[in-house]
Amino acid sequence: MYINRRFYENYVSTRDVELLHEYSLKILKEIGVSFASEEVLDVFRKHGATVEGNIVKISEELLNKALETAPKSFTITTNAGETPIGERFKPKTVGCYGPSKFLFEDDTFRPALLPDVVKFLKLMHTSEVTDFVNNSAYDTPDLDKNQDNFYIPQVALCLKYSDKPSYGNVANSLNVKKKSLKDAAKEIATMYKEFYDIWDRPVLLTNACALSPLGYSYEVLDNIMGLIEEGQPVTIITCSMTNLTAPAALMGSVIQNNATVLAGIVLTQLIKPGVGVIYGTVSSPTDMRKTAIMIGAPEAQLIQMSSLALGRYYGLPVRTGVGGTDSLKPDYQAGVETMTTLLTTYLGKSDFALNNAGILQSYAVGSYEKFVLDEEVNRILLRLNKGIDISNEKASKVFEEIKKAGPLGNYLAGRTPKEYRDEHHLSKIFNKTAGDPSVLFDEIGDIRQRAAKQIEERVESYKAPDLTKKQQDILNRYLPESEKF
Amino acid sequence: MYINRRFYENYVSTRDVELLHEYSLKILKEIGVSFASEEVLDVFRKHGATVEGNIVKISEELLNKALETAPKSFTITTNAGETPIGERFKPKTVGCYGPSKFLFEDDTFRPALLPDVVKFLKLMHTSEVTDFVNNSAYDTPDLDKNQDNFYIPQVALCLKYSDKPSYGNVANSLNVKKKSLKDAAKEIATMYKEFYDIWDRPVLLTNACALSPLGYSYEVLDNIMGLIEEGQPVTIITCSMTNLTAPAALMGSVIQNNATVLAGIVLTQLIKPGVGVIYGTVSSPTDMRKTAIMIGAPEAQLIQMSSLALGRYYGLPVRTGVGGTDSLKPDYQAGVETMTTLLTTYLGKSDFALNNAGILQSYAVGSYEKFVLDEEVNRILLRLNKGIDISNEKASKVFEEIKKAGPLGNYLAGRTPKEYRDEHHLSKIFNKTAGDPSVLFDEIGDIRQRAAKQIEERVESYKAPDLTKKQQDILNRYLPESEKF
Repeated sequence: MYINRRFYENYVSTRDVELLHEYSLKILKEIGVSFASEEVLDVFRKHGATVEGNIVKISEELLNKALETAPKSFTITTNAGETPIGERFKPKTVGCYGPSKFLFEDDTFRPALLPDVVKFLKLMHTSEVTDFVNNSAYDTPDLDKNQDNFYIPQVALCLKYSDKPSYGNVANSLNVKKKSLKDAAKEIATMYKEFYDIWDRPVLLTNACALSPLGYSYEVLDNIMGLIEEGQPVTIITCSMTNLTAPAALMGSVIQNNATVLAGIVLTQLIKPGVGVIYGTVSSPTDMRKTAIMIGAPEAQLIQMSSLALGRYYGLPVRTGVGGTDSLKPDYQAGVETMTTLLTTYLGKSDFALNNAGILQSYAVGSYEKFVLDEEVNRILLRLNKGIDISNEKASKVFEEIKKAGPLGNYLAGRTPKEYRDEHHLSKIFNKTAGDPSVLFDEIGDIRQRAAKQIEERVESYKAPDLTKKQQDILNRYLPESEKF
Repeated sequence: MYINRRFYENYVSTRDVELLHEYSLKILKEIGVSFASEEVLDVFRKHGATVEGNIVKISEELLNKALETAPKSFTITTNAGETPIGERFKPKTVGCYGPSKFLFEDDTFRPALLPDVVKFLKLMHTSEVTDFVNNSAYDTPDLDKNQDNFYIPQVALCLKYSDKPSYGNVANSLNVKKKSLKDAAKEIATMYKEFYDIWDRPVLLTNACALSPLGYSYEVLDNIMGLIEEGQPVTIITCSMTNLTAPAALMGSVIQNNATVLAGIVLTQLIKPGVGVIYGTVSSPTDMRKTAIMIGAPEAQLIQMSSLALGRYYGLPVRTGVGGTDSLKPDYQAGVETMTTLLTTYLGKSDFALNNAGILQSYAVGSYEKFVLDEEVNRILLRLNKGIDISNEKASKVFEEIKKAGPLGNYLAGRTPKEYRDEHHLSKIFNKTAGDPSVLFDEIGDIRQRAAKQIEERVESYKAPDLTKKQQDILNRYLPESEKF
């Protein structure tokens, strides 16, 4: 069992949640949400929503109906097993997602290429704190962009390099030509079903980002419809920025995001009642000095804690995070901000976090070094969350030990006891040694050098999943030329 | 008002606290605590405690009597004003405390000298997140060690360079010769009283560290007695290490520390009922691979949260922290760990934290760069702690803004609104800019370079406090030769 340390409850009260809900309803009823798809507008019309142009106004009744059918939890099934998502389960995580450039171990920033994406897949696959894999940098320059669909080749890489479940991006009108994005989404879902030979359950989870304020693009809606018709769950998120695409006050972001995400969730349940959907936000404050997003700022966590409280109020699985930083390098700032951005997920216990490791400069840059360093932050938070063992049995035992040692005695005797191993997290990458700092630094090296060494070891020891001939044949239909079996 | 986000309550329940208390009492009654001072043993004897050799056994009755007189809060008064300490007040902080070496801006580790201590005093003095100053590195090699007391010259530096209150170390048998440490402590208290011309109130707060397990050295006891007889409050802390000077299980550290600190608190109240005393711990886990303290580890926070819960149960002002890191440099690890180590203080709301900024390698190394970087962590936590403004007034206001912007509209119009400035923390040292990362990195430079620049600016803009001729004369009696007016 994963204990919910209820981090957000100390910031957002039940009364706050009720007020946030009240005003979100007001937005849904009086302002409405824009949906850029005739097919979607028809769905809303058919179910009695008010449709004015592209704007859909949603009543409390329609919302409640959708919230009744949206499940509290759902499970992604792959050949490797089941991954349940929801309040009763440990938060699930995805590694590096979506940057176009990487900061490499030689300290240069360069556009990521397919071999880099493969290397990242190997790190995610071998990570004990990352549950889902993703094709990290997408639409890399070395893909054959004359293909009608150069999105699905990238997705197929996930299945080649890892038997962990995949967390998908949506196909877009740049990487898919000559067919609708809805069909492209269906094709992806079908590839997974065929690959796993699992046809009747969710096998894939995909991220669908709304526009802010209060809108959904044609591209995202097409993907949502395609995936849901194939019985595949989606995460609906917003990524509003204060004072740009949301009001200046944080509360404005929260109610606007909530109304936006709820409208998307209503849509999923109108298309297929009972389909899994994650309620999410990665809304952030804006630095108005340079008009830049600040994903690592404390305000982002305050917005996310409010969203988490709302998601819990609706009984939905909730995505928080990203975990990440606005820094350009895996430096002091990156450490502070990665710890900050993962607090809500791990201590407030959301159900899902994207980019739990490996990104820099908000969403713009991926980094292997940061991935293995961020893993340590995940481990620290998991340890902190585990808490302290205070029990009658332990009390009697330690009292006897203290009595035996006596005042000014010592405890160092023979083998390190089981309690020590049970209750101590020992870092494999952070320095914990005492001694002359100059000598020691020469010995252990810079933390980025240590990270680079771990990356090398991880990539070397990586073992590809065993695939059947049939699975290889399926992937060969999709994989980039250079990656075919 | 500083809101207590009650971070620790999600880790330590009321029932846990009662069990911890029960076993701490058992330790006090059945095992006892060693006090290496005949004068102290006499005090205990006089008040009916059982004294066997150096071991004092304390009854529940004697403890309760002390807890009745120990105040919930107290105030340090200086010429600049009052600094109240206790549950109703913002946590108070001290900067860099106690390392013998510094990591300088040229990236070399060297023993700190007096001018370095002075530079650190200027940073602490100009810090908006540091309440108390301290003579950071003490017993520096350039002090005149032929003096009978080369401790008090260092303390006098605090009064010369800052009008913030001082947080003292205890005098020890190396830096004070030819007089008792009790008299040395009294002399320090008297210097402060005379300097401020305040004779009837606490003017100085001093750290007193017990031995683990379950003991007090002659040196510390002499200082405690001297200070308390002068009406000056002390912080009693333990610094036990799991599996070395405390049991392997964290719970063992907690009850052993609690018994140790309570015994010291009883002593303070027996000497002078009503004198201010802070209940504290900086007990940490041990890395048994190198037998090193891990102050940055999550287990340290679990121990501190338990101690904070106990301190609250006794109604005493509580010290948590240090904030710090086991890293050698202000790197990614340092960022993660400084954020981790300050969580309990700021979000759990303790009353006091030492080393809120500026230390590396556990307690061994000071760093100006880390000081200005750590200040940012303090600011982030203060912002996080402030929370999110959710109110009816704000709801109406942001609703109208959202309505005006409408779906797919925007919020960028004219001057940045007041709400933005009220609710956004803008970092002066962390990167928050978007753009080509290579170009940007060349522009903004490494975070340590940025820190070094801020240090320079701070030191340049530092203004010494205005002292009267009389105050200068008082300090001239104590200051190191090179620092006299």
